[in-house]
Amino acid sequence: MSFDYPGRLDRVRASMLDRSIEVLLLSAGADLLYFTGYEAMPLERLTMGVIPVDGDPVLVVPRLEAPRVVGRPEFSIEAWEETDNPLDLVAGLVGSRARLAVSDQTWAASLLGLQERLPAAQFVPAAPVTGSLRLLKDSDEVELLRRAGEAADRVVARLSAMRLSGRSERDLATEIGALTVAEGHDSAGFSIVASGPNAASPHHEPADRVIGPGDGIVIDFGGRLGGYHSDTTRTFHVGEPPPDFADAYQVLRRAQAAAVDAVAPGTPAEEVDRAARTVIAGAGLGDYFVHRTGHGIGLEVHENPYLVEGNDLPLTPGMAFSIEPGIYLPGKWGMRIEDIVVVGQDGLDRLNRSDRGIAVVE
Amino acid sequence: MSFDYPGRLDRVRASMLDRSIEVLLLSAGADLLYFTGYEAMPLERLTMGVIPVDGDPVLVVPRLEAPRVVGRPEFSIEAWEETDNPLDLVAGLVGSRARLAVSDQTWAASLLGLQERLPAAQFVPAAPVTGSLRLLKDSDEVELLRRAGEAADRVVARLSAMRLSGRSERDLATEIGALTVAEGHDSAGFSIVASGPNAASPHHEPADRVIGPGDGIVIDFGGRLGGYHSDTTRTFHVGEPPPDFADAYQVLRRAQAAAVDAVAPGTPAEEVDRAARTVIAGAGLGDYFVHRTGHGIGLEVHENPYLVEGNDLPLTPGMAFSIEPGIYLPGKWGMRIEDIVVVGQDGLDRLNRSDRGIAVVE
Repeated sequence: MSFDYPGRLDRVRASMLDRSIEVLLLSAGADLLYFTGYEAMPLERLTMGVIPVDGDPVLVVPRLEAPRVVGRPEFSIEAWEETDNPLDLVAGLVGSRARLAVSDQTWAASLLGLQERLPAAQFVPAAPVTGSLRLLKDSDEVELLRRAGEAADRVVARLSAMRLSGRSERDLATEIGALTVAEGHDSAGFSIVASGPNAASPHHEPADRVIGPGDGIVIDFGGRLGGYHSDTTRTFHVGEPPPDFADAYQVLRRAQAAAVDAVAPGTPAEEVDRAARTVIAGAGLGDYFVHRTGHGIGLEVHENPYLVEGNDLPLTPGMAFSIEPGIYLPGKWGMRIEDIVVVGQDGLDRLNRSDRGIAVVE
Repeated sequence: MSFDYPGRLDRVRASMLDRSIEVLLLSAGADLLYFTGYEAMPLERLTMGVIPVDGDPVLVVPRLEAPRVVGRPEFSIEAWEETDNPLDLVAGLVGSRARLAVSDQTWAASLLGLQERLPAAQFVPAAPVTGSLRLLKDSDEVELLRRAGEAADRVVARLSAMRLSGRSERDLATEIGALTVAEGHDSAGFSIVASGPNAASPHHEPADRVIGPGDGIVIDFGGRLGGYHSDTTRTFHVGEPPPDFADAYQVLRRAQAAAVDAVAPGTPAEEVDRAARTVIAGAGLGDYFVHRTGHGIGLEVHENPYLVEGNDLPLTPGMAFSIEPGIYLPGKWGMRIEDIVVVGQDGLDRLNRSDRGIAVVE
């Protein structure tokens, strides 16, 4: 993929002007990757993109990592030595400019160091500045999300054909990581494997519990492909599920479908959350749906837009996000269905198409 | 391992008093893990430990992750709902206290939000407060570092017996990740595989280059075991190395040994860096050793103490760090030797013992 980096730079400068931001400071992570194509190491040595609204962008990098920068011609490189303090370099590039937007994930230690060096400057979060661009995926970005989603669906298909009984959650999570790569991702991300009563913990950390007959299992995993993430959840059951589980699952499936149906250009993000919540609450299970309905996805596995009550952002073509209601009965079981969707000009683009029913396994 | 969490809390309170810190704010990551044993998900939902010097510690967690907290009895849990802003909760816990230390890796977005809510408060980096504890490993921590180091050494032994020629850097890096787990780590971290001229880039990102006859290869990798990291580097060569490479390697090996020999209680950290640098500069290769000699290691793969000119911190028993000089000839080749060592009461504890010579492979 060849992204339009000069165009992104033009657009973010317009976004800076709109918000009276004089310098944008991009720390290692998705913001920097979006504007430079360069993925910095997420360690203590500072890498920072400095984009003045009125000057040329500079990429500040540790000297020993300068050889790995696949430079964008728009950015000049300033390498710092091990005995330098890179915050001095950044402060020098900022100069007397006073309104600075800083990437959300910049380390507090760096921000405090910059605030000390630039006492007259006002620092604000960069998310509104960069988010307005990153929120809307272009066709190349959607294509990478699609390929990641297809690879994740192939992993689901393989899991559905496996014997899960007798395996520990941790062991299965490790195998899912390997399958995530084997099926076409560049790298594996997280794998949640939550079995039996553990599935009532939405973000359960896979551990020693051995999956056995009668267990429901929530499997939530993803990986990266070309920088873009997949993220999907399916619910499995060892043997046929009992009626209470199967009945609740029908409610969940209707809730997920209702949320998907609610997606349309112009609809506020919170309406999608309400659509799922209304179905689950209507079945008397509202207290057991303890999280928002979804999150945006792209260069980060969680990013804007969030589908949560209180977010009235209108959905717009190009937005990509998860739709993932769940029902969690403490001490008993849990279930979740998660798909990634993209808002299109007319209708929805579904990036996960694996079977959404309970996957009955041995 | 059963760490002394109450003792850690007592000691950090003493450290806070020494520095007139009224509240310590621990964000997801190593600081929180050190004081609570809880590893939070590194995502956008805020998890934060709040330790007032004069009150009971609280762990602020997203409600959906509350079930996964293996709580320390010292910390009470405050769970926030998806429609809450957790920064309001943290600001309420801080109250009118004015001197706040915040973990280095706290997201800038969180810090800016807290600064807005607590305009009278003064925020300082937590590293001096928590670092004085985390810097000195107790015997249980050293034991985990040792076991991680032994697992890494077994990976080196397996690599030394493999045919590397004909494989891409990326493919080999993936296999090293799998070996890192197979040999006893809980999870794999980074793997640098830098072959031929790519090895002149100390933090090279493994890519499509296929390893071939006559290549030198720098392999730098590590993993986690019980929360603690390994990190080791060895230099390989496909076939016998040419004289210039072998000669430079002898310099490097002497430099690494000189740095190891320089480690003793009371010696300033920078002296260890100088010991390695003096040998390499003495051979006329000083311009090609472009990074510091080492970094601390523990719950983070890079942490204090850093072995770098300008750091006069006296080495103290319990400090664990890498010693990893390198020589990098742009466009030609690179080489590095990295071991983890722990400062003991009388002498050094070496945690990597794999062969330090050039590993000649097919």
